[in-house]
Amino acid sequence: MNTIGDAKHDLLTPCLCLDRKVLQGNIQRMADFLAPGKVRIRPHSKTHKCPAIAHMQLEAGAIGITCAKLSEAQVMVEAGIRDILIANQIVDPSKLRQLAGLARYTQVMVAVETAANASALSEAAVAAGSTIRVLIEVEVGMGRCGVAPEDTLALARHILVLPGLAFEGLMGYEGHAVMLPEKGERTRVAGEAMARLVGTRDMLEAAGIGVGIVSGGGSGTYDVTGVYPGLTEIQAGSYATMDAKYRSVGLEFGYALTLLAQVLSVHGDVAITDAGLKSLSSEFGMPTVLAPQGWELERLAEEHGFLRRQGGEALAVGDKVELVPSHGCTAINLHEHYAVTEDDRLIGYWPIAARGCIQ
Amino acid sequence: MNTIGDAKHDLLTPCLCLDRKVLQGNIQRMADFLAPGKVRIRPHSKTHKCPAIAHMQLEAGAIGITCAKLSEAQVMVEAGIRDILIANQIVDPSKLRQLAGLARYTQVMVAVETAANASALSEAAVAAGSTIRVLIEVEVGMGRCGVAPEDTLALARHILVLPGLAFEGLMGYEGHAVMLPEKGERTRVAGEAMARLVGTRDMLEAAGIGVGIVSGGGSGTYDVTGVYPGLTEIQAGSYATMDAKYRSVGLEFGYALTLLAQVLSVHGDVAITDAGLKSLSSEFGMPTVLAPQGWELERLAEEHGFLRRQGGEALAVGDKVELVPSHGCTAINLHEHYAVTEDDRLIGYWPIAARGCIQ
Repeated sequence: MNTIGDAKHDLLTPCLCLDRKVLQGNIQRMADFLAPGKVRIRPHSKTHKCPAIAHMQLEAGAIGITCAKLSEAQVMVEAGIRDILIANQIVDPSKLRQLAGLARYTQVMVAVETAANASALSEAAVAAGSTIRVLIEVEVGMGRCGVAPEDTLALARHILVLPGLAFEGLMGYEGHAVMLPEKGERTRVAGEAMARLVGTRDMLEAAGIGVGIVSGGGSGTYDVTGVYPGLTEIQAGSYATMDAKYRSVGLEFGYALTLLAQVLSVHGDVAITDAGLKSLSSEFGMPTVLAPQGWELERLAEEHGFLRRQGGEALAVGDKVELVPSHGCTAINLHEHYAVTEDDRLIGYWPIAARGCIQ
Repeated sequence: MNTIGDAKHDLLTPCLCLDRKVLQGNIQRMADFLAPGKVRIRPHSKTHKCPAIAHMQLEAGAIGITCAKLSEAQVMVEAGIRDILIANQIVDPSKLRQLAGLARYTQVMVAVETAANASALSEAAVAAGSTIRVLIEVEVGMGRCGVAPEDTLALARHILVLPGLAFEGLMGYEGHAVMLPEKGERTRVAGEAMARLVGTRDMLEAAGIGVGIVSGGGSGTYDVTGVYPGLTEIQAGSYATMDAKYRSVGLEFGYALTLLAQVLSVHGDVAITDAGLKSLSSEFGMPTVLAPQGWELERLAEEHGFLRRQGGEALAVGDKVELVPSHGCTAINLHEHYAVTEDDRLIGYWPIAARGCIQ
């Protein structure tokens, strides 16, 4: 590790850097966008995995935090966060017991899509003497998890009579829309998904079932879901740290997250860095080069990155390069902590406390 | 975590499983292959990142351990390992000081490819009062780091007169050969690479420079490099845990490493598991499904895996599936520990202590 006050340029590499002012600006920008309307945000913490950032989001008005996994939720609870949505199904009996225990001392919600799972949740809650809040996950066109809109009413009725469960409402993730490159198409597909979700709410309410929460929304479509009539909250997460993929589809949040690497070897127009697939992910394409200009990341090997000169100044062994991860969620998960900077000076290290919390 | 003695099938998911007997068998198989010849093994620990496995390899006759990074070496030194090759260049001044400090109390070797880097290593060693052992990395056709054979003599002469450095020999990695699918082609390309390496040694020795170590070799070509005249040691690492990519090119080591996942959702012929890109890597293609038969992993999302039925028995929510990582090195790096099993019972957890050691 480095010493507080060190210049960003002098940080040991590979180093995951987080610009605190840009991060704060992104969080505030989202808060400002949502403020005039009725939709609130419960930011997904699967991206940043960092209680320090979750608390910044809560201070800016977030109504709680979303997690992907139970172990992630446990980390956030330990960090003092008291209102958590686990936006996936939990089906393992041992995990159900852990969830029911968590519900004894925190507000925890979980997604369900089958009656059998709802019954198992109920049994675990009753055994623990707690109440688990549930959202029915509705399949809104993504083709992943979730119950079809037409099957939602039966599942809601099943849940309503189960002890130990509180039926809170619906969630649906328009994941098939969030990264569509063309803005109009993205808006249209997200709108259709939200129409399915809100239409499902209407069906339930017509049957006399109150739906308190209607939750959707990733970062790529926050400007659709965040103002969609009937939605009550969105789960966007990547907007806070941002990445190159979301910028490529036009998202206007700033690059708070970068990866500093060092050149180990230069051969002609190729510079080889110390940051490979154990520092950066590539499923959304290559990270982009922020500095120096005129170089492109051509390939990531396991321990090395291959930069190719496209007309920029020459690089020498020992030089630093700054990259923007293509997919923040999986890149962040590779690191122990953020090196947090302000005005290009190190102000501290923030543990990525939920890193590796896959269970 | 689970309780020792639990059935493998009952392990909480996603769970990185390591079969101790298969692991031991792989380590012994490599030892047996090398025993009659003159080439020794210094297994690369960038794959397993686990001191417990490194010690098993040393007990089976390995002459030391190879690391990719200084921070990885530090972990291995703390675990009692006293002979380490860092098979990459270290160029950062602060890291050079750390390396020189490490060399005060352990046998550490590092790869060099430039005179400037050798001089910087020398200065750091002199300042620390230690001796750093160096191997010149020779470019043997992979197109990554390394000095051209014809420039090696000048670099060796430069190193020989520098205080604080001990010139030990040469290394060259035939990374462009190790995964060639066709065995004959793989053998030919690896042989050409080793001919460049040993030819470079001959040049140096003809000039009166002793070359004690000639190091090459990944797992895919161990049967070429492990018997190549003139080589003294190989760096193979993946053979111990193995993965689906190496099996696909015909490597006959056993699958010690698997990933247990759980089905969260079933929609027709698609089963969705809890193991996505935060549990498995995909740069070498999709992991393969070991059990149940008749299912294929079609896609990995961030938090989910998508299995498609190809004729096997139906899967239900809660069922477990066992996958073989396509690339062990990057998959292992995502996990905190191995769940170690014997005869399909949990016998312990081994920390992946060098996980995330990217600096």
